[in-house]
Order: sequence, then C-alpha cells, then structure tokens
Amino acid sequence: MQRRTFITGAAGAAAAATATLSARSAWAKPEYKWKMVTTWPKNFPGLGTGANKLAELIGDMSGGRVQVKVYGANELVPAFEVFDAVSRGTAEMGHGSAYYWKGKSEAAQFFSTVPFGLTAQEMNGWMYYGGGLALWTELYAGFDLVPAPAGNTGVQMGGWFNKEINSVADLRGLKMRIPGLGGEVLERAGGTPVNLPGGELFTSLQSGAIDATEWVGPYNDLAFGLYKAAKYYYYPGWHEPGTVLEAMINKQVFDGLPKDLQSIVLNACAVVSQDMLAEYTARNPQALQTLLNEHDVDMRRFPDDVIAKLRELSHEVVAEIAEKDAFSRKTFASYQKFLKQAREWSAISELTYLRARDQA
Amino acid sequence: MQRRTFITGAAGAAAAATATLSARSAWAKPEYKWKMVTTWPKNFPGLGTGANKLAELIGDMSGGRVQVKVYGANELVPAFEVFDAVSRGTAEMGHGSAYYWKGKSEAAQFFSTVPFGLTAQEMNGWMYYGGGLALWTELYAGFDLVPAPAGNTGVQMGGWFNKEINSVADLRGLKMRIPGLGGEVLERAGGTPVNLPGGELFTSLQSGAIDATEWVGPYNDLAFGLYKAAKYYYYPGWHEPGTVLEAMINKQVFDGLPKDLQSIVLNACAVVSQDMLAEYTARNPQALQTLLNEHDVDMRRFPDDVIAKLRELSHEVVAEIAEKDAFSRKTFASYQKFLKQAREWSAISELTYLRARDQA
Repeated sequence: MQRRTFITGAAGAAAAATATLSARSAWAKPEYKWKMVTTWPKNFPGLGTGANKLAELIGDMSGGRVQVKVYGANELVPAFEVFDAVSRGTAEMGHGSAYYWKGKSEAAQFFSTVPFGLTAQEMNGWMYYGGGLALWTELYAGFDLVPAPAGNTGVQMGGWFNKEINSVADLRGLKMRIPGLGGEVLERAGGTPVNLPGGELFTSLQSGAIDATEWVGPYNDLAFGLYKAAKYYYYPGWHEPGTVLEAMINKQVFDGLPKDLQSIVLNACAVVSQDMLAEYTARNPQALQTLLNEHDVDMRRFPDDVIAKLRELSHEVVAEIAEKDAFSRKTFASYQKFLKQAREWSAISELTYLRARDQA
Repeated sequence: MQRRTFITGAAGAAAAATATLSARSAWAKPEYKWKMVTTWPKNFPGLGTGANKLAELIGDMSGGRVQVKVYGANELVPAFEVFDAVSRGTAEMGHGSAYYWKGKSEAAQFFSTVPFGLTAQEMNGWMYYGGGLALWTELYAGFDLVPAPAGNTGVQMGGWFNKEINSVADLRGLKMRIPGLGGEVLERAGGTPVNLPGGELFTSLQSGAIDATEWVGPYNDLAFGLYKAAKYYYYPGWHEPGTVLEAMINKQVFDGLPKDLQSIVLNACAVVSQDMLAEYTARNPQALQTLLNEHDVDMRRFPDDVIAKLRELSHEVVAEIAEKDAFSRKTFASYQKFLKQAREWSAISELTYLRARDQA
C-alpha cells in the first residue's frame, strides 16, 4: 500500500462511538487526555478504523482514565509528520507503519514489511519471540518513541494492470505506482516506479498516466473503484506479504504512566494487531467475490518466471539495506535468521496444509 | 492434540511469577481473587504457560484488582471437569479447548478445530468478523459461561508413525492414537483410533501397542521425546489445522464485574490468543531443526491420494455434526459459509505467496 492522501471513509464508526460514550458515562474523569495522530484518513476502512478501535480499547480498559482522541491525516499534522509530531510530544501517540520512516533509519522497513519477507503470522513470531520488537524498541528509543505492532493487512494483492504481464520482458517500461522497496525492485527489472497519493490512483490509471498500480487488497481496492480503470488484477502481493501497522507513544509520556496503564496501552495495541488481520481476513474474501462476480474482474497470477525474477531482485534490494549502518545490519541479520527457519516451518505446515485442503 | 494427562513442565514460569509479584507489590489490594482451572499440566509449554500469561495480564492491566491463581489439571479438578467446575462457580475461570466439551454440544468442536477446516488466521476472521464468537457466546450462555478465544497452536503435525503410509491401503488396520473427529475419520478409512493420555504415548508407541500417534507439533513433540519411539514424522496435521484454545469465565462472575474489568479480562484473552500463536510460530521451527539435524528424524509428507481420501471422509464426518441438533446445524452453516470464502482468498493470498517465496 504506502499511501499519502486518501478517501474519507465512514464505516460503522458512528455506532461504535455511541457505544463507547455510553460505557464511559459512568467512569472516572480522564487523568490523561491524549491526541493520536495517524497516517490514514479519518475512519479509513481497516487502517483508520483500527486506529479508532485502539483509542476505544484504551478508554474501555482504563475505565476512562486515558482518553484518546484520534486525528486523521492532515487534521493536526500531515501523514508523513506523524513520527516527528509524536517524537517531539505535539501528540502523545501515533498510528502508521514503520516503512514510512525509512528516512530516519533504513532498518525501519523490517518492522513493517519487505518484499518476499515474513507473513503476518511469522512477523508476530519474530516480533514477540524472535527479537524483532526488542530491536524496534531500541531504534525508536533514539527518537523518544515507544513502538508496538498495532494491526496487519495480511498478504496484499499484486495490483491493477492495464498491460498483461506474461514475461519478465513485460516489466520493462512499465509505469507503475509502487512506492518503497517494491518500487526499487521494479526499477531494477526495467520498469518505472511512480509514487502517487492514493487519491490520484484512479484518474492516473484511467488517463493512462500510469500502466498499473498496487494498493492493498480487495476490501480497500473495491472501495477505491480501481476495477473500473484497469483490465487485470494480479496476485500475489510479493512486495507486501504481511504489512505491520504500528502504534508509537511518546517515550516520556509512556514512562510517566503507572504500570497498569502502560500495560493497558501496549496490550490494546496487541489486540488491535490481531483484530485488524481478522477484519481483513473476513472482508477481503467478500470484496473479492464482489469484484469477480459483480464487476467481472479478470484476475491473474503473476507467471512463475516473473515471480522468480522479482524474488531475485528483492533479495538484492533487501540485502543492501544491511549495508546502510550498524543497526540496519543487526536488524537484517535477526530478520534473515528468523525468515530462514520460518520458511521451512511454514512450508510443511501452512503451505502444505492449504494445498491439501484445496486439492481437487 | 487433545490430551488427558500430561507431563509436568517447568518453563520460565518461576521467573515470570517473580516479575509479576514485584510489579504487584505497589498495587491495590485485590478486589477479586479468582481461581483459573485448566486442562493442561501446570506450566505445560505453550498451552499451560499461555494460561499463566493470561492470569498475569489480567493482574497487570487491572493494577492487581483482579488476582488470578492458575491450577494445572488435577490440582483442583481433573482436566475434563474444567467446564463443569467453572459453570457451577467452583472456579471463576477456566482454560482449555472447546472440542473437549462435545458431550455438552457437538457444535463445540467448531469453536476449537475440525479436520480440513479453518487455519488460525481464518478462525480469527470467523470468530471476530464472521459470527463465530457470537454463536459460541450463545452456546456457552446456556451453561452460565462466557467464552473467549485465548490461544492457538497453528497448523499441527500429522503425527509419529512406525508404519509407512504410502497409500490409502496402509491406513487399514493402523492402530493410531488420534482422538475426536480425526479418530472418526481414521476409523472410516479402516484404521483403529485409540484414545490415550499424553503421558502414555511414548511407552505405547515403543511397545508396539500402537502404530502411530499424533500430538501437537515440533515444540511440544520434542519435549515428549516421541522421536525416540517412532520411525517417521508425517505432515501436515490435516485433523487440527489451527486449534483454538479457550478461556471461559463464570457468567455471573463476569456480569458482576465493572465494565473496565470486563474489557480487561476479554482483551487479555485476545492478547494471549495472538501471543501463543506467535510462540508456536517461533519455537516450532527451532524444534523442527533439532529433530531433523540432531535426531535424524525421517520427515515425510502424506501422499496425495491419502490426503484426498482423508479429506473426503472428513467432509462426511464434519457434515454429520450438523444433523445432531438445531444449534449445531446453525453453527455448521455459518462455519461452512465462512470456510468457502476464506478458502478462495487464502488460495490466492497466503498459499500463492508462500509458493512464490519458496520456488527454487
């Protein structure tokens, strides 16, 4: 995904807000009034509503002692100033994804997602039991921030294309909106990566200014109406196999909380982490059905040789992050070690099981 | 898995308990002192330590207002009396897995796992966004219980065998320890399912009393030393593709809690749900390496025609649950509807991605 500006959503946020207010009416006066700035438009499905849910949970579990008000991108600060705003204490808390902050450290991308990297389930393994969260905490401490995983999209889609991709040669000259590491990989394959805000994807695709764009997956892509502007919907999302959304809390603010509220804040993030993935897992299949059955979308799998080339180039691009600085090298080593073991286990568990379930 | 009696574990529980006590020393006196009875031996890796973690989280987030003492199987009540003990209020809380209670309702099995059913990630989708948890809550309310997902093992292994399984014919006459629905499937394939407590698996396998046994996965199987008594380690665990562990709270006790503590208790369950899966995802690969490299385990995949037969029989066995009563029919319909959509989405997301990542 990786987005700059967005549609404004609606979702069931109004109903949720009402329920929260009535629960709160019997509660203590807030001891802490926090602002949560986010990189999403207010109420954006999945990502923005996940941030809302995080605020709500902190309120619920603290009996109203911590009250968190959520701000969409540009309401208080622009999307890409969320990190700095929380770092300097303009807001107490933020919600985004770590690959947005690679300007601060290239290593940040490992705490979000990398091409041909860990899936959502594997990322949780690395974060909580493989040293990932400890590294992330070390990195963000240098910016007066406390990070926590707070959402996951699961495996994304490859994107919407107006050119068929039948071979590696078809990537040459391809103008595709694909930011970050995925874009670097496309460039090495001879394509032209373009970075565009989400709100411009539809018209850019329709006008022919770009040949293709990635976004998130069926649930979010359907909402954008991208199927009206593209011929083919390719899978899988090799460039974002399980993108972690993050919460960040200003470190001084966090350190000043009593232990019970510290625990509530971090565990609310963990709850949202699982909850958002559950939401995507339930809603992507429904949206996919709508795309295929009501909008006759032509869905295609990337050919094997294209995947092989993208994988080879991805390994190069990701390995080069390790060369940037000592911390990136350490993080890459930890990630790679976990990935090697996780691949072997996923191959005989998740992968073999899913194949066994689907065999005709 | 499905276990009756067990080894006694040790794990890092002592250290964890100490940390909790020191954090608690500054806290309020407990307003609620609860007993949590479990179907696991105290501190059993993953399952029992997950129950410990749940108790700890409730204490941490409530600032010590709710203090939960965990009891292993047989410490207060036997493993299979956990449900009744919490239902009648002997203990305030329990930790187990819903398929243990199929004597109460056949439908309970859908809230745990069924052969060729949903994976861990898909189960969360069904539970939280597909109506699963609402059905489960309805079922358990009839027993004065409030249920919550509180752990997941991920895809299990197929089991330890002393006979090669090269064709469907090799299942005939096979004496295998495999309880529940998996056992019914084996029986229809001509095998003889046996139910044995976990503690007897090793000797039964070694003496030839049984030809095979399933347990959980590398992390737990290594601890049992099963590799010393069997020739082959088969995968995948078609019979338990993502087993949900459960917490249950006595309904009157739960309803009497203030809203903030209700939220803390249920969300602590959600945290443990994700955390346990992360633990298995990190530790199974390590244990698998030990089994393969240090103990020279001969690991094999079930042949395609064996999987096809087991799948066909599984569909029969699972569909028959729907015939038991109106609630089971309703639950089966909800589960099947979700499974149909989830299969299509997992096939183009998780499955295709994992294949793309692994292609040589």
